[in-house]
Amino acid sequence: MDWLDQVKWDAQGLLPVIAQEVGSNDVLMFAWMNREALQKTAETGRAVYFSRSRGRLWFKGEESGHVLLLKVIQQGHEPPIACHTGRHSCFFQVYRDGAWHAVEPVLKDPKTIYK
Amino acid sequence: MDWLDQVKWDAQGLLPVIAQEVGSNDVLMFAWMNREALQKTAETGRAVYFSRSRGRLWFKGEESGHVLLLKVIQQGHEPPIACHTGRHSCFFQVYRDGAWHAVEPVLKDPKTIYK
Repeated sequence: MDWLDQVKWDAQGLLPVIAQEVGSNDVLMFAWMNREALQKTAETGRAVYFSRSRGRLWFKGEESGHVLLLKVIQQGHEPPIACHTGRHSCFFQVYRDGAWHAVEPVLKDPKTIYK
Repeated sequence: MDWLDQVKWDAQGLLPVIAQEVGSNDVLMFAWMNREALQKTAETGRAVYFSRSRGRLWFKGEESGHVLLLKVIQQGHEPPIACHTGRHSCFFQVYRDGAWHAVEPVLKDPKTIYK
């Protein structure tokens, strides 16, 4: 199965995308990709998005509407768990060499989180 | 005008939300809020989301589907600008005391960015 087929595209064939800056870890922006945009992003190493308002690919430089960024402190479990899979963060898969790799450890068995 | 009216809700009355951890700056998860969810979040200081699959509010603890997090290095302008308003990041407004406040400086006149 193609790594692009493993992405859970929504009903419109789109995927929400968050851009975070290396180093500062600042969250910079939010936008959307379709399959073609993600493929081009992987090929070129540059962010290629899909503009919902224009109905076509765009190469950065357009507003994406309002998004809310919550700065949070996780409570309840030590170490903190945000993901229903029992991981610290929901972003635990990395794309590398044509495939997805889970790179964050499971801190707690999900079966014991949801009873 | 109410601070909730200043949010650009989408056609379904929803807003994409990114949760970022204080300290580590890890991006933890992505979900949606409607007006009621955001109001409750502000009132309680806890994240209240809107579940699109269940059609109701939820208080954390459900997967939100796939989202892509890009770790990026900004190029082209020093200091780096991600936002079309000429700011470092698109997240330049802070909600405080019932209103939105722009807290990031404009690094470059937007008129000179888009010609």
